[in-house]
Amino acid sequence: ATRLRAFSGPTIFTEMTLLAQRTGAANLGQGFPDGDGPPAMLAAARAAIDGGMNQYPPANGLAVLRAAIAERRRADHGVAYDPEREVVVTAGATEAIAAALIGLCDPGDEVIVFDPLYDSYAACLAMAGATAVPVPLEFDGTRFTFDPDRLRAAVGPRTRLVLLNSPHNPTGTVFDRAELAHVAGVCRDHDLVAVTDEVYEYLTYDGVTHVPLAGLPGMRERTLTISSAGKTFSATGWKVGWACGPAPLVEAVRTVKQFLTFGTGTPLQAGVAHALTHCADWVGELRDSLQRRRDLLVKGLTAAGARTYPAQGTYFVQLDSRSFGFADGVEFCRALPHDAGVVAIPSVALYADKEAGRHLVRFAFCKSEELLTTAVDRLGRYA
Amino acid sequence: ATRLRAFSGPTIFTEMTLLAQRTGAANLGQGFPDGDGPPAMLAAARAAIDGGMNQYPPANGLAVLRAAIAERRRADHGVAYDPEREVVVTAGATEAIAAALIGLCDPGDEVIVFDPLYDSYAACLAMAGATAVPVPLEFDGTRFTFDPDRLRAAVGPRTRLVLLNSPHNPTGTVFDRAELAHVAGVCRDHDLVAVTDEVYEYLTYDGVTHVPLAGLPGMRERTLTISSAGKTFSATGWKVGWACGPAPLVEAVRTVKQFLTFGTGTPLQAGVAHALTHCADWVGELRDSLQRRRDLLVKGLTAAGARTYPAQGTYFVQLDSRSFGFADGVEFCRALPHDAGVVAIPSVALYADKEAGRHLVRFAFCKSEELLTTAVDRLGRYA
Ligand SMILES: CSCCC(=O)C(=O)O
Ligand SMILES: CSCCC(=O)C(=O)O
Repeated sequence: ATRLRAFSGPTIFTEMTLLAQRTGAANLGQGFPDGDGPPAMLAAARAAIDGGMNQYPPANGLAVLRAAIAERRRADHGVAYDPEREVVVTAGATEAIAAALIGLCDPGDEVIVFDPLYDSYAACLAMAGATAVPVPLEFDGTRFTFDPDRLRAAVGPRTRLVLLNSPHNPTGTVFDRAELAHVAGVCRDHDLVAVTDEVYEYLTYDGVTHVPLAGLPGMRERTLTISSAGKTFSATGWKVGWACGPAPLVEAVRTVKQFLTFGTGTPLQAGVAHALTHCADWVGELRDSLQRRRDLLVKGLTAAGARTYPAQGTYFVQLDSRSFGFADGVEFCRALPHDAGVVAIPSVALYADKEAGRHLVRFAFCKSEELLTTAVDRLGRYA
Repeated sequence: ATRLRAFSGPTIFTEMTLLAQRTGAANLGQGFPDGDGPPAMLAAARAAIDGGMNQYPPANGLAVLRAAIAERRRADHGVAYDPEREVVVTAGATEAIAAALIGLCDPGDEVIVFDPLYDSYAACLAMAGATAVPVPLEFDGTRFTFDPDRLRAAVGPRTRLVLLNSPHNPTGTVFDRAELAHVAGVCRDHDLVAVTDEVYEYLTYDGVTHVPLAGLPGMRERTLTISSAGKTFSATGWKVGWACGPAPLVEAVRTVKQFLTFGTGTPLQAGVAHALTHCADWVGELRDSLQRRRDLLVKGLTAAGARTYPAQGTYFVQLDSRSFGFADGVEFCRALPHDAGVVAIPSVALYADKEAGRHLVRFAFCKSEELLTTAVDRLGRYA
C-alpha cells in the first residue's frame, strides 16, 4: 500500500537484535529482559494449558483478567473502571495502540505526539490516514520535557487526539503532575481525547512514581489508558496488553481489535491475571533490581567517558554519541557491534525531527548484571 | 472512525457465545472445539514457558516454526517456500488477513470476495479504505459454488486482489481444481494477487482433499497463502497463524503486522512448531472424528425435519430455517436458545447479499458427541 511504503523493512529493534546475534555482541538494543517473570505467573499459564484453556478467549479478554486489570488501576492509581464495559484485553500494548488509532482517527485527522515517539505510533497513524503533529521533548538540563506553549500551538481544527507515552521510551522521562496538567488542560480546552501508553508504569526509580493522566481532573472521561504485562512481569513475548477508559473509547478499540486478532493467547491471559493479583512483591523487587542495573550501566558509561541523560523510568538510558567522537548516532551504532562488541539503538530511529535526535543513542539496562558488566567493560576498552 | 461505524458492536460469534452462556443452551455457534489439541503440543508449550521462551519472538516468527510451516507446505501440498523470506508468523490467520489487506490495498482499491465471507474480511477492507466486490456462492444442487462468468465480470480497473477462503466457512465447500482454475485464470489474465484463507485445510471429509490455489500453474508467484494452528490442532485460543508467499507479499504482511502486534505468544509458537512436525497422526484422527461428528449432526438435523446442505470440510453445516417454519434465519437463531436450548449462527451475518443468506443457518460440529447428541435431541423435540 502506498501510504505504508515509508514503513517497509524490519523495525530498528529487529535490525539491531539480528546484528547482535550475527556479531555475538552484547545486546543492549531491543527492550526485553533476559530474566523470566514471576514463577507463579509461569505456573499459572502452564496450569491453564493443562486445564483446557486453549480455545478462543472472549474478544474483550478473559473476565478474570479484566477484573484483575480494573482492580490494579483502582488500587494502584485510584482510577476505577467497570471490567465489563471499560476494559479490553489486546495482543500487547502494541495492538491496543493500533486499534485505538485505527478506531478513533478518520483520514486527515491530526494526532499530537511527543517527539521522540515509539516506532509503531507513526506506522499506525499512516494506516489510519492520520497525521502526526510532533511536539519536541528537549533536555532542560535535568531531563527531557516539552514546552507547554508548543503543545498548545500544536492544536489545530483537525486535531483528534493526544498520544502520550509515560514513562517515556527512549528518554526515560516520567511526566510529573505539572506536565500532565498541561496535557490535561489542552485536552479539556479543545475537547480532545488522550491515549496514553503506560507500559513502564511500574518501572520507575529513585522514588519517582508514575502518575496516570486519567487520574487528573476531568481526564478519566476522555482518556484511554494502555498498558501491558510485558514489561511489568518480564513477559514481553506473551503479548498480553489492555486498554481502559470510558466505554465509547474502549468500544472503539474492541471494534477494531476483534478484526485484527480477535483475541490473544488464552492460557497466557490466565497467567497474567494471576500475576496482577498475586505478584506485587515480585514487581517491587524487579523495580529495585532495575534501578541497580541502571546505576551499574550509567556508572560504566560515565567511566567510559560518555555523557548520559538521567532515566527516571523505563528500561533505557540515553547517551550522547559525540562523547565517543561520533556526531551521528547511527554511525556510532553501526560501528559499535564490530568495534566494541555492544549493540545499542540510535534514538534518531524514533525521532520525527532527525536533527534533534542525531547524536542520541539508547542503551537497555533490563539485562543481567553480567551482560551489563561485559558491555561496560567493552565500552571502557573501546573508549 | 467514520469508516468503521458499520462494524461496531460485538461480532456475531461473540454475541451468540454470550447468549449460549446466559441461556445454558448447547453452543453450536462460534467455531471452536470443546476438546484439546495434541498432548505433545501442549507439553511443548509448557516446556517453552519453563525453558525461558517468554520474551519477544522475532517479528516474523520463531525460526523453528517458520521452518516447520515451510516443510508442511512442501510435504503436504508440494509448494516450496524459503522460511526466511517467504513465511511470516502472525497472531492467528485473522492478523494475517488484516495485515495483508491493510498492507496490499490502497484506498479505492477493489477486492473480489466470495459471498458469504468471514466477518473480518469486510471490516479489514474498510480499515484499508478498499471496497469488497462480492461474487455469490450459490447452491447448485450439490454444493455452494460460483459462476465463473460472474467472477470474471467482477474484475474492474481498480481490482487489486482476489480473496478466497477454501475450505469455505460457512458453506463447507472445498473448492476443487476446476473451480480454482477459474480463479487462477482471472488472476493471471488481470495480473491480480490472490490471498487465500486455508485455515480448514486439514479438515476435509469423505476423501475430499484440499487443493491450495498456490499450487496451480502460475499462481505460486502471486498468491499469499494464509493458514493457522487454531483449527488443525484445536488451539483456537493460541492465536498462531501464518502467511506464505513470494517475498514481496510476505514483506507487505510483515511490515503491517510488526506494528499491529509485533509478535504472537512465543511459547505457543514453540508448541505449534512441535505439532506441525510431530502430530500428523493426531490430525488424521481429528479429521476422522470430525467426519463422524458431522454425520451425527446431519443425521439428527435431518431426523428433526431440516434440509441441510452438505459440508465437504470445515467445522460447519448449514440448514434451511424454512424447514422449521422460519423464513428468516436470524429470527430462528433468536428463538432457538430459549425454545430449543441450542445456539447456531445465522449465516446472513456473513452475507453481503442479505436476501441470499436470509434462510441459512450454520451449526458447528466441532463439539463433543455428547453435546451434539444433546443438541439434536433438543432440536428433535422442538421440531
Ligand atoms: C517490539 S520490539 C521493541 C521493544 C521495545 O519496547 C523497545 O526496545 O523500545
Ligand atoms: C474468532 S470467532 C469466529 C470463529 C470462527 O471461525 C467461526 O465461528 O466462523
